[in-house]
Amino acid sequence: MTDSGILVILSGPSGSGKDTVLNKFLDGRNDAKVSVSMTTRAKREDEVDGVNYYFVSREYFEKKLSEDKMLEYAEYAGNLYGTPKAPVDEMLAEGKAVILKIEIQGADKIRKLYPDVVSIFLMPPSATVLENRLRGRNSEDEETINHRLVIAKEEMRRAADYDYVVINDTVENAAAGIETIINAERRKTFRNKNIISEVINNV
Amino acid sequence: MTDSGILVILSGPSGSGKDTVLNKFLDGRNDAKVSVSMTTRAKREDEVDGVNYYFVSREYFEKKLSEDKMLEYAEYAGNLYGTPKAPVDEMLAEGKAVILKIEIQGADKIRKLYPDVVSIFLMPPSATVLENRLRGRNSEDEETINHRLVIAKEEMRRAADYDYVVINDTVENAAAGIETIINAERRKTFRNKNIISEVINNV
Repeated sequence: MTDSGILVILSGPSGSGKDTVLNKFLDGRNDAKVSVSMTTRAKREDEVDGVNYYFVSREYFEKKLSEDKMLEYAEYAGNLYGTPKAPVDEMLAEGKAVILKIEIQGADKIRKLYPDVVSIFLMPPSATVLENRLRGRNSEDEETINHRLVIAKEEMRRAADYDYVVINDTVENAAAGIETIINAERRKTFRNKNIISEVINNV
Repeated sequence: MTDSGILVILSGPSGSGKDTVLNKFLDGRNDAKVSVSMTTRAKREDEVDGVNYYFVSREYFEKKLSEDKMLEYAEYAGNLYGTPKAPVDEMLAEGKAVILKIEIQGADKIRKLYPDVVSIFLMPPSATVLENRLRGRNSEDEETINHRLVIAKEEMRRAADYDYVVINDTVENAAAGIETIINAERRKTFRNKNIISEVINNV
């Protein structure tokens, strides 16, 4: 086993399929967990507290912020979203791969806090597929879709800041790509100092 | 596909099982090749020219050196051993993973020439296994075996210079470890700039 867990960032533009790929990857495994974000926005009917998000009051969220108990946070449309620190550190101490599904801005903050973080950018296989996915999602007007495409393009320009790129041509391939990356990262020398020392010291 | 091939260094102490693991890994695959070294030592009966080594005269080897056509070389027991440059560059241009099975000193030289090289250190799973493998190999005296163990220990101290460590507990696990590392490295962002640009430019 490696000396400790691995922190993994997964980002990708809207329409890249992050949720589907992540669910496929996590299905049935116990050595990797996704970090559940905290939010002040209202819970939707189909959402479960502690699964989709930790749903909290703005007052509670701001208290956590002031106590430095959030890894990163951002505000969208008047609601706060962020990653609580404690569960991440606990899962890492258990040797798990902890996956943060976060935006590009959040990724920048995490890299500063955890220099050994492994960052993965999920890409659609082509511009056509991206557009179809954004169109298929709901019946929004042309203007909204074009706006989403422009944002996706801007986000993909930041792919170079990530260690790895995984192409989501099929959910299976993309999930296998994430698994391969984590399995390889577990073999990084700096994550195996203990076992190397153990062999050397017994010669 | 990635923009180009991947150069991989595989090192490990005598007794770590490099040849067995490499043969298992390469078996039946066409996307990875091991680089054949050149040597001035005499061909043994069971060896095949162009498979085990390129067997050449000292004069020929030194000519290649003077023409800067060797990636690295070293002299052991009066014989020259080295890696010819041209076949490596050809296989990389074909998009293959090219594996250099070389010593630690050679690895240092390759890192300077190819900063993107991926280096893997093959470790025995324990000191006991290492000792058993060195003993099992032939009927050498205690002094020779102790000398080999000291050298292996020194070599393992350099494992930290390598990107990855693969533990050779079983040949299957170790070969799968090399495969996982290469598959992950093919997903490094800097090796996928073309496909990223293609998607972005078509949005």
